[in-house]
Amino acid sequence: MTNTENKNSKPLKIAGLGRYLPERIIPNSEIEANCDLEEGWCTRKLGISERRWIADENITHMCKQASEEAIKDAHLAKNDIDLIINASNSFDCVVPDQSLQIKKVLGIERENVECFSINCGCMSCLFALDLSSCLLLTDRYKNILVVSALVSSPGLNNKDPMLYSMMGDAAAAMVLTRSSETEKSCLYAARMETYSRATGVGGFSGKSGKKMLFSKNVFSEDFYFEFDSQTMQAEGVKYNRDFFSRLLPLKRNLIKVVIPNQASRLAIDMIKLMFPASRIIRIIDWSGNIGAVGYPMALYEAVKNKLLHRGDLTLLHGMGAGFSIYGILLKY
Amino acid sequence: MTNTENKNSKPLKIAGLGRYLPERIIPNSEIEANCDLEEGWCTRKLGISERRWIADENITHMCKQASEEAIKDAHLAKNDIDLIINASNSFDCVVPDQSLQIKKVLGIERENVECFSINCGCMSCLFALDLSSCLLLTDRYKNILVVSALVSSPGLNNKDPMLYSMMGDAAAAMVLTRSSETEKSCLYAARMETYSRATGVGGFSGKSGKKMLFSKNVFSEDFYFEFDSQTMQAEGVKYNRDFFSRLLPLKRNLIKVVIPNQASRLAIDMIKLMFPASRIIRIIDWSGNIGAVGYPMALYEAVKNKLLHRGDLTLLHGMGAGFSIYGILLKY
Repeated sequence: MTNTENKNSKPLKIAGLGRYLPERIIPNSEIEANCDLEEGWCTRKLGISERRWIADENITHMCKQASEEAIKDAHLAKNDIDLIINASNSFDCVVPDQSLQIKKVLGIERENVECFSINCGCMSCLFALDLSSCLLLTDRYKNILVVSALVSSPGLNNKDPMLYSMMGDAAAAMVLTRSSETEKSCLYAARMETYSRATGVGGFSGKSGKKMLFSKNVFSEDFYFEFDSQTMQAEGVKYNRDFFSRLLPLKRNLIKVVIPNQASRLAIDMIKLMFPASRIIRIIDWSGNIGAVGYPMALYEAVKNKLLHRGDLTLLHGMGAGFSIYGILLKY
Repeated sequence: MTNTENKNSKPLKIAGLGRYLPERIIPNSEIEANCDLEEGWCTRKLGISERRWIADENITHMCKQASEEAIKDAHLAKNDIDLIINASNSFDCVVPDQSLQIKKVLGIERENVECFSINCGCMSCLFALDLSSCLLLTDRYKNILVVSALVSSPGLNNKDPMLYSMMGDAAAAMVLTRSSETEKSCLYAARMETYSRATGVGGFSGKSGKKMLFSKNVFSEDFYFEFDSQTMQAEGVKYNRDFFSRLLPLKRNLIKVVIPNQASRLAIDMIKLMFPASRIIRIIDWSGNIGAVGYPMALYEAVKNKLLHRGDLTLLHGMGAGFSIYGILLKY
């Protein structure tokens, strides 16, 4: 299998990876005390042993730390970055956009650095990878920084123990470049599907029902983060079954490493029906559900622990709220 | 001048345009009464005679109306759309992403329709145009729907009369396709520059200072929209002066129509220093500052009023918060 066997294959290389984990570790005992749950509930129900929540870190700071590590890992300097994509649905501020704040804290002075944010929920980092593979085909960009943060802890409600115990805060970053003709790295295939079902399973809504954001008539209760992952999984499972044949007909044993959306134990168990557990990267046990950040974070784990080597075929795959199914086959 | 004269020119055509204006017109007299201002203040200070504010419309509904008109204008059916880009910093909900809500209300059933949102403030629609020109080079998409809404009225504070009187609500949409070899339409040149200055001029901050969004510890006052456009203009003016030569050295009289960011009278007056007023599209008088929506809304005006014809060279240009300078040369 070469880069050219699939005509839509694109020369993309993940040149560097970085991450930021908040220092404050929240053990299950703290969750169980806050939610008035019996001991062992979190492990039994969710298979999660701990998660990190921010103390006084803000999102910009988290993105800075992850980006700096990724840029260093790629053996580049900050000023080598041409484009910053903030792939996230967490932000310190909406105007100006988060991506510009990240450029500033990184101390990048060059004026011809482009910045924007993309959001498609937990799939944001996959879309950013996919999009970057198209953008790197043009001569406009050499090095793209994709950075993602999720901070959901300030919006969690201890009256909803499932979500309260499941969500973690984190940031991760990737530096993407165009691979040379002698390198095997590529984005081999990508596919996103969207289904207008289960659009109502998430959001910020409280006592006063769904509200327009950025309105003066808000109450603290409006900012509880709500998400019904079980309803989404139940909706998604029937469409997910044949997704791989639509993504690319390929022998499954060619895939060395599978990186599922670290959304829940259920989401990962669904992948185990199709791939041996030994090939599946699982970080949810210590990260919790960190949304879009889960993909680069799990990639980081796989690479640093030498489970994924240059040229290995890896599948990044999962479902996002709304809902969407995304799959990317990547030769790391 | 042909499509191939600039090697970075890309075959992009705006096949359809649509818009949505809230029914509720807010005349200056209402603003002046609400802010305790003397009669004529709005016209004298801002050159704005009216703006629209939502009554009970939500963002999804506004996007639906604008998108339907654009799809019809392109002589396409809803199911011909392959990708929906929500280019905006206004949303009814963050999870699931707004783009998926738009797909749903449009009644698009196909599963292989991709959806995501991008945000780079007032420049979001320009980035979406620019990005689409790269994406249409691949075979993956035939018809891209870019839709944008701005709803800032619920966050305006009558103690800040400048911003209160300046901002309007609106939505607009564009259907983008790849132009054929016999068509002149193209994205001729594009450039975005970013400057880490004036990053603190906008945002949502109130009595309690800048806050993390989606936090339980919020107050109504935190959701006042604040923006200091004068500071930004003052910062930007020195970088803006030579921007055109960096975008593309081109005789200015080749440009038939100039569409500036409809941010303020000052922003448009800056463009008048470089182009004759007769070529500049100005909608702020009746729309107010509608952020990113200003570009497709002004394009709509120019095309419907027969000021812009197929093959005409048009410049879309402005500054966004953060701040950024963007310029797109487009053969409509």
